[in-house]
Amino acid sequence: MAEQTYDTIIIGMGMAGLSAAVFTARANIRTLVIGNPKESQLAYAQVVGNYLGADAKSGMEILEMGKEQVEKYGAKTLLMEVVHLRKSDDNTFLVKTSNMDEFRAKTLIIATGVVFRQAGIKGEKEFLGKGVHTCVACDGIFYKGKKVFVVGNGNLAAEESLQLLAFTKNLTILSNGKEFEIAENLKERLSKEGVKTTKDKIAEIKGNKFVKSVLMKNGQELPVDGIFMAMGTATALFFAQSLAITTDKNGFIVIDGEGKTDVKGVYAAGGCTGGYEQIAKSAGEGCKAGISVIRELKGLTRYADQT
Amino acid sequence: MAEQTYDTIIIGMGMAGLSAAVFTARANIRTLVIGNPKESQLAYAQVVGNYLGADAKSGMEILEMGKEQVEKYGAKTLLMEVVHLRKSDDNTFLVKTSNMDEFRAKTLIIATGVVFRQAGIKGEKEFLGKGVHTCVACDGIFYKGKKVFVVGNGNLAAEESLQLLAFTKNLTILSNGKEFEIAENLKERLSKEGVKTTKDKIAEIKGNKFVKSVLMKNGQELPVDGIFMAMGTATALFFAQSLAITTDKNGFIVIDGEGKTDVKGVYAAGGCTGGYEQIAKSAGEGCKAGISVIRELKGLTRYADQT
Repeated sequence: MAEQTYDTIIIGMGMAGLSAAVFTARANIRTLVIGNPKESQLAYAQVVGNYLGADAKSGMEILEMGKEQVEKYGAKTLLMEVVHLRKSDDNTFLVKTSNMDEFRAKTLIIATGVVFRQAGIKGEKEFLGKGVHTCVACDGIFYKGKKVFVVGNGNLAAEESLQLLAFTKNLTILSNGKEFEIAENLKERLSKEGVKTTKDKIAEIKGNKFVKSVLMKNGQELPVDGIFMAMGTATALFFAQSLAITTDKNGFIVIDGEGKTDVKGVYAAGGCTGGYEQIAKSAGEGCKAGISVIRELKGLTRYADQT
Repeated sequence: MAEQTYDTIIIGMGMAGLSAAVFTARANIRTLVIGNPKESQLAYAQVVGNYLGADAKSGMEILEMGKEQVEKYGAKTLLMEVVHLRKSDDNTFLVKTSNMDEFRAKTLIIATGVVFRQAGIKGEKEFLGKGVHTCVACDGIFYKGKKVFVVGNGNLAAEESLQLLAFTKNLTILSNGKEFEIAENLKERLSKEGVKTTKDKIAEIKGNKFVKSVLMKNGQELPVDGIFMAMGTATALFFAQSLAITTDKNGFIVIDGEGKTDVKGVYAAGGCTGGYEQIAKSAGEGCKAGISVIRELKGLTRYADQT
């Protein structure tokens, strides 16, 4: 499938991402929103009472209304998982989804809510940055020809493993007791490359100053040089690291008052930026990021979407 | 009428004020919202398309839904104009409405949208701070026994004049060609105190380094020491000056990421803080200010209104 280009790609289909999209779409900015409303924290809300003008609706109802609204104004929505993201030399951004489709855009809005996800394995925190990593694009290069594990059971783990092949073939994916849920084409590529997989459970990550081995629940101790955590779907921290965006000590993406990160062309909004976890706050930040994208693309110092 | 006390008073009944109120009310904070949705900029919007989850409604519809929503959760709303505001020695805030009712609260949220209003009189800008002022509580003291004009035709002008009487009796209210629209009780007090009024139009404020006179359209030149501008209803700048809150060079109230001003207990949200003039941004900032008030009053480091 040929690469598709947009003016802006919004990663995340919760309130922040959808709110950003409604502004960019209404300004005729070619907008693609990738994500799934069901993965928004809001999807779990039975009755929402604190979002002004939409009292007593469920979270899913508000999200579905929002999705229809952005589509009505011309934004494309894609219920898909982003597994890879990078900046090209021409300063555009390449976004790859789990079905291996590729999308390119001049600007990017990260609105994925969740900042990061821990596997909850003993030693995971202790060795973070000392053999335990969360981003192949950032740290894969340190493991040329080394023995590496990827921990995860989904498309993100598969894609991270495929990226690692550029550095080492000595590679195993550990699902840590979970069933593998990897898209067919990714699965084929992994098997063609000879990437090993195991469903065995991990008991502990061990080492001294740096990671040395992984102790499995079955008693086996497997020596290893590096471990890349890639649980579930990609989180904001993963995207931030992929683009070298500054995050704070809690992993939240640092933005200015207009939703800009410190990487030109990249904006962020909602839960992944920290602060109060409320719909109105996320929608408000999405609005700021959306308008800032409009201003960047159109070269405007001011922009108002007065309805 | 006896003074009524609340935990928080929100000045302004647009999206920012109502969004703040829905949070404080739901947290059982005794909340009073004073203002009028019809004075919100949003009231002029025929069809709103960019507020997520409430597509194709009119601005007034969204405001009315919001007003009902905050009332449902226990906030009191008062369709009234605030004409005076001050901080007491016990660090509570006193709010006076144009019918002379008095309300007191421990915290305050300023959400009045409009920052300031110019009369458009020649010389008005030039002499600002040099004989032309916008807040009697701030600068009235410089005019002890001096000759002073108050420019305005409404309750704000009346209340500012009554405050000026503490410093000087040599006082005239100039409506600048407009009909006077002053509440009966204020009118009575002005006439009892002998405050003069005129509807004559002003041509120019004249002076050298400081204001010296006002030239009227009828050719008369009236010598004067100081002029207090008090057009229309009280604006955010007026409230900010009344409490010595820091504003930026455009008169916008400076807040931090949680909606706090630099005066303890006072928060601000929406248009009066500058930035993008959008409903989502105002509602998001109202949310932040509301939650910050809850945290201050309940002494919480964290608070989440998860619905």
